[in-house]
Order: sequence, then C-alpha cells, then structure tokens
Amino acid sequence: MAQKPNIPKGTRDFGPLEMARRNYIFSTIRSVFALYGFQQIETPSMELMSTLMGKYGEEGDKLLFRILNSGEKANEAPEKGLRYDLTVPFARYIVQHREEIAFPFRRYQIQPVWRADRPQKGRYREFYQCDVDVIGTDSLVSELELIQIVEEVYKRLGIRVCLHLNNRKILAGIAEFIGAPDKIIDITTAIDKLDKIGLDNVNKELSERGLSNDAIAKLQPILALQGSNDEKLATIADLLKANEIGSKGVEETRTVLDLAKDQTLPIELDLTLARGLNYYTGTIFEVKALDAQIGSITGGGRYDNLTGIFGLPNVSGVGISFGADRIYDVLTELNLYPASMLDATQILFAAFGDDELRYALKWAKQLREANIRVEVYPEPAKMKKQMSYADAKAIPFVAIVGGNEMQSNTVMLKNMTTGEQTQVTIEQLINKL
Amino acid sequence: MAQKPNIPKGTRDFGPLEMARRNYIFSTIRSVFALYGFQQIETPSMELMSTLMGKYGEEGDKLLFRILNSGEKANEAPEKGLRYDLTVPFARYIVQHREEIAFPFRRYQIQPVWRADRPQKGRYREFYQCDVDVIGTDSLVSELELIQIVEEVYKRLGIRVCLHLNNRKILAGIAEFIGAPDKIIDITTAIDKLDKIGLDNVNKELSERGLSNDAIAKLQPILALQGSNDEKLATIADLLKANEIGSKGVEETRTVLDLAKDQTLPIELDLTLARGLNYYTGTIFEVKALDAQIGSITGGGRYDNLTGIFGLPNVSGVGISFGADRIYDVLTELNLYPASMLDATQILFAAFGDDELRYALKWAKQLREANIRVEVYPEPAKMKKQMSYADAKAIPFVAIVGGNEMQSNTVMLKNMTTGEQTQVTIEQLINKL
Repeated sequence: MAQKPNIPKGTRDFGPLEMARRNYIFSTIRSVFALYGFQQIETPSMELMSTLMGKYGEEGDKLLFRILNSGEKANEAPEKGLRYDLTVPFARYIVQHREEIAFPFRRYQIQPVWRADRPQKGRYREFYQCDVDVIGTDSLVSELELIQIVEEVYKRLGIRVCLHLNNRKILAGIAEFIGAPDKIIDITTAIDKLDKIGLDNVNKELSERGLSNDAIAKLQPILALQGSNDEKLATIADLLKANEIGSKGVEETRTVLDLAKDQTLPIELDLTLARGLNYYTGTIFEVKALDAQIGSITGGGRYDNLTGIFGLPNVSGVGISFGADRIYDVLTELNLYPASMLDATQILFAAFGDDELRYALKWAKQLREANIRVEVYPEPAKMKKQMSYADAKAIPFVAIVGGNEMQSNTVMLKNMTTGEQTQVTIEQLINKL
Repeated sequence: MAQKPNIPKGTRDFGPLEMARRNYIFSTIRSVFALYGFQQIETPSMELMSTLMGKYGEEGDKLLFRILNSGEKANEAPEKGLRYDLTVPFARYIVQHREEIAFPFRRYQIQPVWRADRPQKGRYREFYQCDVDVIGTDSLVSELELIQIVEEVYKRLGIRVCLHLNNRKILAGIAEFIGAPDKIIDITTAIDKLDKIGLDNVNKELSERGLSNDAIAKLQPILALQGSNDEKLATIADLLKANEIGSKGVEETRTVLDLAKDQTLPIELDLTLARGLNYYTGTIFEVKALDAQIGSITGGGRYDNLTGIFGLPNVSGVGISFGADRIYDVLTELNLYPASMLDATQILFAAFGDDELRYALKWAKQLREANIRVEVYPEPAKMKKQMSYADAKAIPFVAIVGGNEMQSNTVMLKNMTTGEQTQVTIEQLINKL
C-alpha cells in the first residue's frame, strides 16, 4: 500500500509545464490549419480489429493493442483494438460518412495513437499524432498548400527547416529503368539509408537484396545526383524519358516545385527519400530541422487509393503528419518556447487573516472581470509559505493584504522579479496588469 | 470488402460541426479555468490494473476495459486497463509526483474515459470528462472558487442553471440523529430519488432497506424542509445541535453560503443531494440546467482522503466535473451555439482556368498574411460544383476569378447570404474581411 504508484511502460504523465508547451505547439499548428480551411475531426480510440488488421504490414499487426471484451456477450462481441495511427481511421471515416462529406475534404486530427513497441528512450507506446489531409482531388495545388502550411508552422515556432521532396512515380520509374521493376521496395528501403550508412553499404545491401550488378551500376548516377533542383530534375527527366511512370513523376514534381517557387523555405529534391509506406503513389515529403539532430519532424505524401481498402476506390488525397514529440524536443533543445507560456497566472493574492482573505476575494473578482488571471492563496498562511508558492509557480506579481491595506483600500503589490513593492489602488492594479 | 465499415458499439466519430461545437465548449471552460490559475495536466489512457481495480465498487471493476498484452513477455507484463474516470488517475498522479508539485495544486483535465457499459441512447463507452480540482487545502475558499467558475462558465455559454449544495457531514449527522448511523448509504441512495419517485416510494424503500419506522418518522421533517437556505439551515442546525459531525457540516455549509452570497447564480441547499460516491467527505455540488430536462450537467464535492488509496493520507481537496456531452445536448436543444463557429473559412476562391487558379493562389497568400481564413478550390471545376462546395461548407463569401478579373487585378466578390456581387481590389477585399 505504501509502494509508490506507477504507470505502464512507455506511457507518460504530462504535468503543467509540459502541457503548456504541448498546447503551445498544437495551438500554433491549429491556427495555421484554420487559415487554410482545414476542419478538425476526431475518431474513437478503439476500432474494430477488422478495421486495423492487415493495414500495417506483418510487423504492424503484432504491435496492435487489443481490448478484451468483458461482461455478458463477451464471446459474441467483435474484437476491438486501439488505433495504431490516424490514417486508417481517417480512411474508414471517409467511407463510412461519404454521404455527409463535402469533397474535397480538408481535415485535421490531433489525437493519441497506441503501439505495443518495445519501450525505449524517445519511443513511447502512447503518443500524439497530428495529421492534416486534403482528400477528393488529385490537384497538385494541395501539395502546395501543405508546403505553405509547413513553412508557416515552423516560421511561427521559430524552427529553421528544410523540406525534402520526392515522388513515388519517379522511384517506380527508376526501378524500371535499372531493370528491376519488381524490386522497388528493396531499392527504396536500401537507398533510404544513404545518409546513415553511406554509398558502399547501400550498394552492398542492394546486392544482398538481389539486384544485379548491372542494375546497381545503372543506379549510381542517380544516387550521385548533384546541383539545383532544376538541374537534378533535368538529369532525371532525361534518364527516364522513355519511361512512362517515371516521366509522369518528373512532371508532377516539376509542377509542385513551380507552384512553390515563391516559398521561402528551402526545398530540396531528394531522390533517396522513400518513407517506407506502401500507400504513397505520388509526391513524398519530409521535413528536417536544420539546427537539431533529430531526424524528420514532419512527413507525408500523396495517395491515390487509401479508401480502396474500405470499398471506396480512386479517391485521391495528400497529407502530412507533424511529429509533436520531436517538435517538442527540438523546441526544448533550441530553447524556443516563449517566455510567457499561455494563460499563466498573473497575480497571487496573499492574505494574512480571515478578513484580509475576504477582502482579497473581492479584489480578485473585479480583476477577473477585467480578464486578469488571478489566484487567491486559499488560507491565511505564513508569508514565507505563500511567497514560496508564488515562486514555485513563477507568478510575476503578489498582492499582499494586511490590516493597513484593508483600511486604505489598497494592496501592497510586490514585483517578484525585481523585488520592488508599491502600494496600489484597485484601478492602478487593473491598469498595470 | 464492399461492406460499409463501422466502429465499435458505444463509440462515436465527431465530424467538423460536432468538433467545432465541442471545441467551443472546452475552450470556454478553459478560459474560465485560466482566470483562476488552474493548469492542465494529462495522464495516460492506460493505467496498471492495480491502479484501477477496487476503486469503483464491485460493479465498476466489471466495467473496466482490459488491454491484452502482446508480443514477447506477454505473460510477465503487468496487466493494464483503460482509465474509467479522471479522479483515480489524478490521485495516482499526485502521489507519484508529490515531490514536484506546488500545493495547493490547482489542476484540470479534459480527456476521454472508457467504460464497458451496455451501450444505449445517451450512454457511450468512450466519452470525455472535464474535471477541475484544488488539492492540498481544506479551505472552503476553494468551494467558493468552484462555485464562481460554475457561474462564469454557464454565463458565457448562456445556460441558466441552479446549483444544489449539500454536505456529507450533514448526511452523516442525519443518519446518526434518526438512529441509523450505519445506514447512511441506504438512506442517501433512497432519498436521492425523492424527485423521481416521490416521498411515499422513498419511505417504502427506506423500510425495505431495513430502517425502523421510528427512524423513518424522524426523517420526515428533514425531507419536508422548506424555505430559504438560511431557514432550512437554521432548522437542520437545531435538529442536529447535539450531533458533532452534523453540526460541523452545518457550519461548513453556512460558511460556503456566506462566501458565495455575492454570486448571482441561484444556490439551493438540497438535503437530498448525495451523488452516490463514497469518497466525498464534505461539500457536495450538483448543477442543473433550468431550461432543459437533462439531469445534472456538473457535479462534485470535497474529499479528505482521496490519495490515501495510493499511500499519501490526509490530503484534502475539492473538485467538480463538467458533463461535456450533456452540455453539448443542452446547447443544441436550446440553440445556443454562436452563429459564427470558431475559425471557419471566411472566403473561397473559385477559379475557372489554370492561370486563374494561380492568380487566386497569389491573392490567397496575401489574405492569409492578413490573418484571413481562405480556401482556394483546388481545380478549375464548373461554377456549379465550386458554388455548391461553398454552400455545403457555409462559406460566407466566394471570390470568382475569370479572365476579366485577372486583367483588372480584381475578383468578383459574391456574398453567399445576400447573393450580391461586387468587383473588388485586393485592398478592398482585405478591408472587408
């Protein structure tokens, strides 16, 4: 009974400071989403197992948390599990509610997801995802909007970023071009590691994965591509000119880069970018922070048939996901949280008797009517205790109420940063705060 | 495969309108919490079963959703379940993090909870709770603050309410007074139904529950109590004057009513109010909407030993819980949602060619820099389709871009409510919106 309570491995409590920071991140992101007409939806934490199974590859199924049925009819009830991401629930939502949705549909979701991963540093079993998608149009203007949203979000957060761009059709074209069309997954899995393991190891892995020496040789100039985006694109356009799908991918990328030419955020065409997921069919994005070693902080891409798995084929869409936990860590590392965190208490009333406490309550009421965030220490405790509470909560002002103050209809206002004390009337106090 | 997908019984998707309404409710509540210095925390969805079991009565344990362990070490891992409420996680949080917490601790939590109830109309298996508590002080000033918060929240939402007040010590005193001190649960369970089943049926139930005729007789004047709060309190003070715990309850209630005398919300002393939970030890609150038949929309009370179950005894606190789903239904029934829901798109650009689309994108960029919420229809589709999208999303203005407009650096602005169309420059448009 005296054993300290705990929470499951891989889960976290978020205290007031962490919540203030997370809310800062989410509210910044949401304000930008609103500027582009995106609307929030929420789906249930539990989905039918039939919705979740088989959507995340073989490994994914093993990482689903299942929920035990309880009570009567436990054997009859369909099996349920906790959602693994927001994309599959989104696809299920679209198909289930298609009669009520105005397409193209612009939605965002900010909710936790659950994965029974082995917990380690930076890897949690419960974590938030923040997804934004446009679905029901194949227009590349949607790609532009997501790029604009990325630029604006990170500008507001103060994080310098670079956006990496690729296209799944280009990767498919490359696979065909080098003579290994059925090996696109092997190729992209290997070349995705170029930054981490270097060219020699990538080539070794490609060989281990069954690519012929000829194919690997044909790949080298592509992996060695240099120059501006236009130069790279021109080279790849030339290489793939006889390849239909590759050329289509080049055209799409050319259009996206052109639409985005007035954007200030750096955009880099990166032919090694694959992002591992099978449902991307066009543009692929990844955003990296320039001043922190953290991997990608936002990613996504275009998909032409997400809802097909639920029976509604050929609905094209594009989306990105903001990695809230990574953004949190970057802002912490780079010390980018604003000094005044959202909505913190502005002033504490410290009273030293019951009458003084009632006096303080009256003042507090008036201050709150003026939209000032006030706390009244609830007991007439010793000065030291009340001050130390103000310090612990970093409350910038304390209004001290003693007999003197009551008689003169004032409070003694202490600036907790400078230590300065001044006697003020209620009007003076309201004006000051 | 063509079968329409579905979600588990008792769960709900929230579409854009529902989310806008829920966000309106939560953001109203959160702004009021901030005025009183309350800080948000979040706890994990899954808790250890050892944390959850035995906290909700016999019936409660059956309603817990258990999470199956998966993968390696499934047999060794401690059992987990989804949280059933926010109160037990809150108590666990306090004890686990007591070294880091500045008491008195003022926290709120707005998160979903899960109960394996039999799903019915109005009863969900996943629903949000919105709890606010002060813990670490027994000062009745905290009761006042919660009353003030209730008044302000419902004032902002436009819902007329009445707050019912009682005190567990008074109920304990009554039980002793009528000679049935060990039957407080039976008594309170029965009299809690007075409104619903009437006095005769309540007396019948009390008899069935083993109260003597003598005890029931002694209870009648208490159940028949009339008059103002002061009058009722005077009567009960007199009846319980020889009873220590009852008198203490009367004193506490007198203090709370006195502290709250400047509040405008109606407060009614209601001696039949019990709220079923065992951990209340002092003040008990319940809030009813005056203009809707919906039961209670907020409730709570004082507890002296919540954290005792986790090994930290004698930490007093008081809290209330806002019933978000019920508030949602009341606002819907009374048609109290604001006409302009938060953050909706203000203007849609409708372009009729690729050049027009690019022109629209340039305008959209400038409007967004002026903080206007803009959508650009992503394809040059037919007028009818684009207009009908604007209607479906209730977008109040459409900026039509054709060849004419491009040449004159204007757009044709259509007011979707009046039908009126005017040609405007970008400065005029920004000023208008």
